[in-house]
Amino acid sequence: MIIHLKNETSKEKANELGVQSQSIVLHQNNAYVLITPSSLKEVPDYLQSYTEQSFYMDSDMQLSSKKYMPTTRNIQLGDALIGGSTKNTVMITGPCSVESEEQITACAELCIELGVKVLRAGCYKPRTSPYSFQGMGLEGLQLLARMREKYGLAVITEVRDATHIDEVIEYTDIIQVGAKAMYDQGILRKCGAIQKPVLIKRGFGTTLQEFVQASEFVLSGGNPNVVLCERGIRTFETKTRFTLDLCGVAYLKEYTNLPIILDPSHAMGYAYGIADLTRACTAMGIDGLLIETHPNPKVAKSDAAQQLNFEEFRNLYRSLEPVAKAVGHQIV
Amino acid sequence: MIIHLKNETSKEKANELGVQSQSIVLHQNNAYVLITPSSLKEVPDYLQSYTEQSFYMDSDMQLSSKKYMPTTRNIQLGDALIGGSTKNTVMITGPCSVESEEQITACAELCIELGVKVLRAGCYKPRTSPYSFQGMGLEGLQLLARMREKYGLAVITEVRDATHIDEVIEYTDIIQVGAKAMYDQGILRKCGAIQKPVLIKRGFGTTLQEFVQASEFVLSGGNPNVVLCERGIRTFETKTRFTLDLCGVAYLKEYTNLPIILDPSHAMGYAYGIADLTRACTAMGIDGLLIETHPNPKVAKSDAAQQLNFEEFRNLYRSLEPVAKAVGHQIV
Amino acid sequence: MIIHLKNETSKEKANELGVQSQSIVLHQNNAYVLITPSSLKEVPDYLQSYTEQSFYMDSDMQLSSKKYMPTTRNIQLGDALIGGSTKNTVMITGPCSVESEEQITACAELCIELGVKVLRAGCYKPRTSPYSFQGMGLEGLQLLARMREKYGLAVITEVRDATHIDEVIEYTDIIQVGAKAMYDQGILRKCGAIQKPVLIKRGFGTTLQEFVQASEFVLSGGNPNVVLCERGIRTFETKTRFTLDLCGVAYLKEYTNLPIILDPSHAMGYAYGIADLTRACTAMGIDGLLIETHPNPKVAKSDAAQQLNFEEFRNLYRSLEPVAKAVGHQIV
Amino acid sequence: MIIHLKNETSKEKANELGVQSQSIVLHQNNAYVLITPSSLKEVPDYLQSYTEQSFYMDSDMQLSSKKYMPTTRNIQLGDALIGGSTKNTVMITGPCSVESEEQITACAELCIELGVKVLRAGCYKPRTSPYSFQGMGLEGLQLLARMREKYGLAVITEVRDATHIDEVIEYTDIIQVGAKAMYDQGILRKCGAIQKPVLIKRGFGTTLQEFVQASEFVLSGGNPNVVLCERGIRTFETKTRFTLDLCGVAYLKEYTNLPIILDPSHAMGYAYGIADLTRACTAMGIDGLLIETHPNPKVAKSDAAQQLNFEEFRNLYRSLEPVAKAVGHQIV
Repeated sequence: MIIHLKNETSKEKANELGVQSQSIVLHQNNAYVLITPSSLKEVPDYLQSYTEQSFYMDSDMQLSSKKYMPTTRNIQLGDALIGGSTKNTVMITGPCSVESEEQITACAELCIELGVKVLRAGCYKPRTSPYSFQGMGLEGLQLLARMREKYGLAVITEVRDATHIDEVIEYTDIIQVGAKAMYDQGILRKCGAIQKPVLIKRGFGTTLQEFVQASEFVLSGGNPNVVLCERGIRTFETKTRFTLDLCGVAYLKEYTNLPIILDPSHAMGYAYGIADLTRACTAMGIDGLLIETHPNPKVAKSDAAQQLNFEEFRNLYRSLEPVAKAVGHQIV
Repeated sequence: MIIHLKNETSKEKANELGVQSQSIVLHQNNAYVLITPSSLKEVPDYLQSYTEQSFYMDSDMQLSSKKYMPTTRNIQLGDALIGGSTKNTVMITGPCSVESEEQITACAELCIELGVKVLRAGCYKPRTSPYSFQGMGLEGLQLLARMREKYGLAVITEVRDATHIDEVIEYTDIIQVGAKAMYDQGILRKCGAIQKPVLIKRGFGTTLQEFVQASEFVLSGGNPNVVLCERGIRTFETKTRFTLDLCGVAYLKEYTNLPIILDPSHAMGYAYGIADLTRACTAMGIDGLLIETHPNPKVAKSDAAQQLNFEEFRNLYRSLEPVAKAVGHQIV
Repeated sequence: MIIHLKNETSKEKANELGVQSQSIVLHQNNAYVLITPSSLKEVPDYLQSYTEQSFYMDSDMQLSSKKYMPTTRNIQLGDALIGGSTKNTVMITGPCSVESEEQITACAELCIELGVKVLRAGCYKPRTSPYSFQGMGLEGLQLLARMREKYGLAVITEVRDATHIDEVIEYTDIIQVGAKAMYDQGILRKCGAIQKPVLIKRGFGTTLQEFVQASEFVLSGGNPNVVLCERGIRTFETKTRFTLDLCGVAYLKEYTNLPIILDPSHAMGYAYGIADLTRACTAMGIDGLLIETHPNPKVAKSDAAQQLNFEEFRNLYRSLEPVAKAVGHQIV
Repeated sequence: MIIHLKNETSKEKANELGVQSQSIVLHQNNAYVLITPSSLKEVPDYLQSYTEQSFYMDSDMQLSSKKYMPTTRNIQLGDALIGGSTKNTVMITGPCSVESEEQITACAELCIELGVKVLRAGCYKPRTSPYSFQGMGLEGLQLLARMREKYGLAVITEVRDATHIDEVIEYTDIIQVGAKAMYDQGILRKCGAIQKPVLIKRGFGTTLQEFVQASEFVLSGGNPNVVLCERGIRTFETKTRFTLDLCGVAYLKEYTNLPIILDPSHAMGYAYGIADLTRACTAMGIDGLLIETHPNPKVAKSDAAQQLNFEEFRNLYRSLEPVAKAVGHQIV
């Protein structure tokens, strides 16, 4: 249950009521808000006189719920605004990993050429084997920061675990919580304490309920700027790397107030299907797209099979505007 | 391996060679074709002198493979032609089940109103419980036949098991092999012996490999008119009924020569997401769509939650043409 | 809801009440029983005066439910009795497919040597490719019948589709409804009309709810002799062929009155793990085991990787009695 | 590939060769070992003269592979030794969460009563909702340490994320890397730098390959004491909480040299099935069991449904010895 306390309620009183009701206390719009476990069905007597407004929730999808906030949140991703009434579909592109200044510069220049506003690239790679390329780490972050300075692009990179969350927050504009790290409370709680936008990827074994609840760690921490990213779930089918769950996206659009970005590159795992899937995602009227590109995918140090080369990406990018327009959106 | 025998090879010789090579013998374009198990890697010596052309296949996806026939098959679904170079996306609609003459007539008239050419409805329902509505059976088939006569619509219905395959073949224009029956060789072999188009739905626990191999039973039986239908697979996610596998569709488009139809109604299981998903499917440039509609979904005897009412369907239908056009297709 | 009608109710009246309540009418213990859809929550007024006893069910697991019959059914599998208070774990073994008289005779003699009472072997193989070995069909059934005559073994074989269900019923002692055919109403309804025991295998994409409901087609048709068989479900894990679902078995033991047989051979798909898994199944105190054996697995025409050779099977078999005994059971 | 360098190779030379071959350098038995990516198929020329012995591996399961070390590792868990030729099955029990000194003392005394040597309990709960009980944190760790001092039990607790790994290492005897944290390199790398045993739980969406590779982060960091724990994977079946993957356990036993512990409590999610499943696990001859017990499960702050009460646990525990004995093992 979300309980908006009356404006005059003091911080001390709010905290005292929070402890009593086992709630998280949030300060929002100059007033205090209690978020109780969803098992609470009615405002208890001792809270009645402090309550301005209350919202009953049938699960722990609370601040993220359309029942609480009926329109999609407006979130600024660099120069691109998404959600709300914008009808924007923001393109985010770049390589799987930062590999060198030359490589990331080429990707940044592709963004500039096409008008893409957000550059993505991994620095801390969440590889499943210790014997694979693990990313450039801090050096990669610094290269990304240089791209921002030089080209005015917003940059996004993935945080792999809580040991380097501070660096990622410092160097990037948007924090990506990766599919393998999205249950990590060390990361989520730090993301709740800042105001930079946070993109949470769905774990490949994660239910929609758990996925949305991960956002509640950030939202209830005080950061309202959360974006969800569907990137494919693990199923019995192995001809493709994962299975992009667009039925799940339909659910999220219906029930949550969080903007949704889709990552068909990781879902498919092969370059050949990505153009078709990206157009499908666009026709759903979603808020953003995350597509992997590389100047020369064949020599990429990670995810070689699924990255588009620049010519493939240009062709795809040009084909998206008509699709977006057909559903009343525009690519930004 | 597919081996085209020389034109002059007699039926007797072809059959003799077929037995020797453990092949299925197919008569096609006035010549005999042997389809050996894919484990055969080279044309054996005793076949060399009879061989006109041979196609090595690395799996039992053979006649359906783009390696054998590089362009998608052209198939006539009633008045609608799909596949090949048509760029057609055929709409198929109607209720989950035929429930009464009044109900199916209303659905047929909706087709006529909008220009939809193919009417679908179930007569033999593959329910998982014996205590649910099981369909009208033969009476339903006769009502569908009446719709064809009265309105000139092509009709498609599902065969549940081999006990009524003959009736379904007799009464309908397109045979639907349902998700729960698609391993049924009793059905598949009968479908191979006719020339009417056969739509095979992917089982919800079926790999793409098995799905395509089901078509090989029909194709190798002599019926080249097979259409595949993706309708959602069963995953750990239960907020939606199934998970529509568009990554799998990208695979099928890349590697098979069979037209592909998508059924977002069964995948989603809820009316609210179907419009978005149908537009996504359309933007993939697929060959057809199967959407459940009902004059009054609330009282439907099966699948009440997922059927669109007529107004919802009209709105959806009108929104599809711009999406199709954006990817160079047209709705037919 | 299951409603036992009073003894004096006539057949005509029972049928009339059945139509009125959309029920299946079953004759059992000299009285009529109505099985209504489980959505019915109370005995309707018009049935009150005819009702002897009623059982409310919250799902369409009805006749199979422990709420209806609190102890596991007693079923005779050839000379072996299972279920009830027997504490028997019956061993069933034999090759994946009947391949020749010599091969099946060797398997039958292994049964005799060890005291195994039920011989299994496939005649109609539900292969997913038309280019693989499809089984010996009727000839295989006749060989199995010969083994029964010669050795006094009970035989079980799988029915693949409804086109040969009559032959399978005629030639075998126990009818196996395979994992790919278990939704097939053409098969299930025929099995409901006989009294021979029916073993239903769980489909690899089938929920426990659907699995148990498949048994309801047979039970409500009038055949009380249904055995369930868990043989592995399809998951994201591909190092093993399927994933044996022992949690599901624990559920079935708790909530249903049907004996349960386990098939670790198909679940594992590799001979190396089968001994360990079979001992695990035995320690669960289940009613039976289905293990594939072959005189020479390397040359087997189907499932070569998972069949045990005779020496492996002898070693396994001997190791089972102590495990069974440790949980109060005996191998029969 | 694992390459044992000759004894005389200096640290500097080993590191230089490591950089050249993109290997991880490990010091073991007074010599250096290089672990190269498994894509390397042959010892390169420049390494030949330094190489004592080499082991080719076809995947990044390397140090954990039976091809490298053919017998299961011997690992000391408190007073209990597992693996190697011990034939021990170690019981680990305790509540889901430390809730109070009284509660954890009761659990510790149950261990003493029955002779159980390892006490488990969570302090940092990896809950999927911020509105649930999150564990007692450091206070819980201190209570566990007190149990060790008072009763001589070894204690194990789960690390949730990298922010508190140091505390968990300090206070416990065995480090548990939980199912949601097992890709966390911040945790895994710290575990590689110590010598305390590390129990890695399989993620519910994690393949066996990835699961074993997680152990490689610890092993290649220099800690040879890794135990794997299977606790159920997420499948389409929802009647039970997860699906215990015993086929996967058979695979791990065959191909890896790591001891395996099974956690049927989390797999099942309901107390009713745990006794049967625990006996099944025991009959597989595995190295350990992790069972949740609570003095009063109904009031437990987490996982209330699946914890056994003390009487249930006593009954279960007594039933295990005969099963273990039947497969040549003993419960310790």
